[in-house]
Amino acid sequence: MSEEAKPIPATAPPAAAPAAEGAPAEGGAEQSKKGAKKAEAKAKKEAEKARKAAEREAAAKASGAGAAAEDLAKDNYGNISPTYKSEAKRVRLEEITEQDVGQLVKIRGTLQNSRAQGAKIFFFQLGKGVETIQGVMAVSQEGKPISKQMVKWMGTVKLESIIMVEALVQKPLEPVKSCSISGFELHVQKLYIVASAPETLAVSVATASRAVGGVDEEEELSKAAEGLSVQDKDAVPVAHLSTLLDNPVIRKRAPVDRAIQDIRNEVQYLFIEFLRSKGFKKFEAPGLIATASEGGANVFELPYFGKSAFLAQSPQQSKQCEIAGGRERVFCIGPVYRAENSNTPRHMTEFTGLDLEMEIEEHYHEVMHMLEGVLLYIFAGLEKNCAREIELVRSIYPSEKFLLPADGKEVRLTFAEAQKLLREEGPEEFRNVKDDEDMSTPQEKALGALVRKKFNTDFYVLDKFPLVARPFYAFPDPENPEISNTYDFMMRGQEILSGGQRLHLPEEVEKGMRNKGLDPNSPGLKAYVDVFRGAGVPPHGGGGIGLDRVVSWYLALPSVHLACAYPRTPKRLGP
Amino acid sequence: MSEEAKPIPATAPPAAAPAAEGAPAEGGAEQSKKGAKKAEAKAKKEAEKARKAAEREAAAKASGAGAAAEDLAKDNYGNISPTYKSEAKRVRLEEITEQDVGQLVKIRGTLQNSRAQGAKIFFFQLGKGVETIQGVMAVSQEGKPISKQMVKWMGTVKLESIIMVEALVQKPLEPVKSCSISGFELHVQKLYIVASAPETLAVSVATASRAVGGVDEEEELSKAAEGLSVQDKDAVPVAHLSTLLDNPVIRKRAPVDRAIQDIRNEVQYLFIEFLRSKGFKKFEAPGLIATASEGGANVFELPYFGKSAFLAQSPQQSKQCEIAGGRERVFCIGPVYRAENSNTPRHMTEFTGLDLEMEIEEHYHEVMHMLEGVLLYIFAGLEKNCAREIELVRSIYPSEKFLLPADGKEVRLTFAEAQKLLREEGPEEFRNVKDDEDMSTPQEKALGALVRKKFNTDFYVLDKFPLVARPFYAFPDPENPEISNTYDFMMRGQEILSGGQRLHLPEEVEKGMRNKGLDPNSPGLKAYVDVFRGAGVPPHGGGGIGLDRVVSWYLALPSVHLACAYPRTPKRLGP
Repeated sequence: MSEEAKPIPATAPPAAAPAAEGAPAEGGAEQSKKGAKKAEAKAKKEAEKARKAAEREAAAKASGAGAAAEDLAKDNYGNISPTYKSEAKRVRLEEITEQDVGQLVKIRGTLQNSRAQGAKIFFFQLGKGVETIQGVMAVSQEGKPISKQMVKWMGTVKLESIIMVEALVQKPLEPVKSCSISGFELHVQKLYIVASAPETLAVSVATASRAVGGVDEEEELSKAAEGLSVQDKDAVPVAHLSTLLDNPVIRKRAPVDRAIQDIRNEVQYLFIEFLRSKGFKKFEAPGLIATASEGGANVFELPYFGKSAFLAQSPQQSKQCEIAGGRERVFCIGPVYRAENSNTPRHMTEFTGLDLEMEIEEHYHEVMHMLEGVLLYIFAGLEKNCAREIELVRSIYPSEKFLLPADGKEVRLTFAEAQKLLREEGPEEFRNVKDDEDMSTPQEKALGALVRKKFNTDFYVLDKFPLVARPFYAFPDPENPEISNTYDFMMRGQEILSGGQRLHLPEEVEKGMRNKGLDPNSPGLKAYVDVFRGAGVPPHGGGGIGLDRVVSWYLALPSVHLACAYPRTPKRLGP
Repeated sequence: MSEEAKPIPATAPPAAAPAAEGAPAEGGAEQSKKGAKKAEAKAKKEAEKARKAAEREAAAKASGAGAAAEDLAKDNYGNISPTYKSEAKRVRLEEITEQDVGQLVKIRGTLQNSRAQGAKIFFFQLGKGVETIQGVMAVSQEGKPISKQMVKWMGTVKLESIIMVEALVQKPLEPVKSCSISGFELHVQKLYIVASAPETLAVSVATASRAVGGVDEEEELSKAAEGLSVQDKDAVPVAHLSTLLDNPVIRKRAPVDRAIQDIRNEVQYLFIEFLRSKGFKKFEAPGLIATASEGGANVFELPYFGKSAFLAQSPQQSKQCEIAGGRERVFCIGPVYRAENSNTPRHMTEFTGLDLEMEIEEHYHEVMHMLEGVLLYIFAGLEKNCAREIELVRSIYPSEKFLLPADGKEVRLTFAEAQKLLREEGPEEFRNVKDDEDMSTPQEKALGALVRKKFNTDFYVLDKFPLVARPFYAFPDPENPEISNTYDFMMRGQEILSGGQRLHLPEEVEKGMRNKGLDPNSPGLKAYVDVFRGAGVPPHGGGGIGLDRVVSWYLALPSVHLACAYPRTPKRLGP
């Protein structure tokens, strides 16, 4: 009963109905309807035929050949036919070898660049995936298969159209430096448009391939409002970040974006690989929750069948529930939400969290060590697996090499040590920072510079934060109730991870809530405490890594939005 | 600067401050505050000491020994001390070997079962992860380290408490069949409560380990309203699904739940592994979107900074945007949302989608073949990697082996062939099913039974659905505009995947919308069409697999909620 895949062209519009519209109507209304549709389809097909002929005539006229000059190549170009079929061998660009030289191949790809050389030769680049190859269309002496009209028409094909090329593989006279495939080129015999790009692109791929000209949407808007030119007319054109984000299809076609996304994927794969090797189990945290577990601020609320639901700001409660349920070590990867009206290159309302939680046997530094381990594994893996992508991104967004602690030995400072360092060796304005208040972003950045100078690393841990600066579930330091068994992980002076040991006894959890002015008997918080009341829960801790931040700050991108395919901000809900 | 991990006990409450409260106050307000806290901590510590002493006295009295009888083992049991420390070797249950026999070890785990044998011996099971081992606590002749009082106390420790056991590893007289570790047992010397379970568990792990007694929440509620007993009192106690879901910590401690979750993870890992080997790239689809891409029904809406946002019902638009952006082959794993007020064992408002999208070279059956490939890979991988887990689940939820097509050859029926089969060989009520209407759930199930009988498979594909039954982006069959290049994948007669070829030319997309009565110029739909207007987009197709359904129907679970750790339904938003 298996229906074999017949090569019906994937590009065929529904118009290509078989010529059955003249058949006698057999089945009443339904059949007539079918007939009507077929007639409509036929009419459309003929209209298209007429349009095409007119187009060719115009092209022929423009070339000065006059209406009478027959185009012997007329079937070798134009919009692809719904019934297109070819015996040419389909190849992938990266698979072309010496054996293909002189062979007829067909390749579908993107027209990425094109220029006429006189009236008889046309050069272009064909792109597919990460590869590009040079195409040459030259008028044949006998006018066939390539005519002057065809070369002329080639000049009208829009960049970033999808085209189908049938060509002979040849060796170029010299290596084509501008293409990733430099040792071969394609000598076109036929070329059809599969899907045309628009008359004018919103932004060119070349521009999208350069560093963005600005990242701050508010600044951009206010500049525009003041009538200021956003960029210097004489300079190489660059796009503002918001232009790129508004045009994701073009943005994605830029090699730099592809490289960033590949690096982003690698971070996730390395995260999963390391944790699985350590016995961690994956689980899916719910996005919809009944109450705001972190206390209620900055949470999205939505109507839910006569009640209210909230979007999870973190998988905190379910991670802990997994541990309470005896899973020992768990991780999850998924979106988390913050309804925070912050419009900065560091913020998004939706981002991807890489979270883990694990039982503690003796000391919460086991968790810290695990988190350091997974991040060091990720950094080492990126250097090894993504060297090419990192280099490409650095060529667009120059940055210093991401320094790692020497000999794989972690660099850890207590919060108090970090504040002391800031006071004693930091900028003037931080001479009076205190050990019992949280750190501001400028303080963090200044500390990052100090740590880099002193310890030669861009990756380090701040441990033992003041208890007041942490959520209600933070575990107090047994030796000093003012501070907590919690930590932040930093990259280039910016936080990528927050975590710590959690309270695991119900009475302590309740106390933690009351200390923060929260009511453990309110419905949502009661559900949280109930996790610890349901059965004995072992000591545990964990942390949440911001994937977008790891990628951005590893690469020193000017905005975290560049690391995210579809960033969401208070002002941006699409595309 | 790295702070070495000192074994500060993970379980220590903040009370354990060093004895510095008598030191002269040096630092003004802050120091005094610290001092006060320390004094408070000391008081608490002493109160705890007093409480413990009273507890022991009571226990001693109860044992008939009188207040005067000193308990020589008094330090060997009770609540674990905040400063607990032990030189015993920490082992993992699965790592115990012959070399450990006679050695003193410490293991933290869950008290899973316990029974006294007379007044002098106590047997229990200690569980950690998937392993269990027998523990024996027997009064030593000299009353030390185990006293009668200690054995008596053991009877008061609540099941599902977390306990710390120090014990000698011994070989039991005969293998302990009731435990996963049958060749060793633990002869207790010390035993402390790390975290106590409550007086009464909401449901026992034994009950949670049996098949649920019912899955339909509405039926359950109406039964309760009518005062009907939900279960037979004489029967082995079983829990209704809703009881399990209300008590996730106990639910998770049941081996059957662990097995289901492990299988669920394996499905995801196999999905990723197969697709990566085929050149697919991962990406993250946004959860928050500006409009309901599928047409507007059953979508959650929320206030978003003065506008409205919606929760994505599928990653459809972003998947297609990835293809438009030249990514060639992509997949994503993430939550999708349906605001559908359906209260059945098949429905959830949030579930995990395994989605893929890819360019089509010649024919959309390339996509179908890829999807069949990944699912067959998953099924083969499950049989190989999860045999033990599948067997465990089957011992609780008996089901027939999941049949796969012979010789790895896919079973495909066109929708019309399937309807014909139903008409000709199906139950009486389906004698008149038509080829141009969608299939109902009972029809699907009847078809599943027919296909199993006829083709000996529980996994098959329905191809070429009527165009009217599919979304606006479905690609019409080039040979018959009434039907479409779309498919559903079925497991045991139920749909797990829906997909097909998509329209890729902007004018066709607009037409598709208008045919469904949608306005391509409405803001949300315009954004969708803009993806195809931005540049030429190659032909492509894909599909979305419901992870929860694959797991449930592979295992023939009575409810899809059993496959999900935190199911969300119109009536359930937590825990």
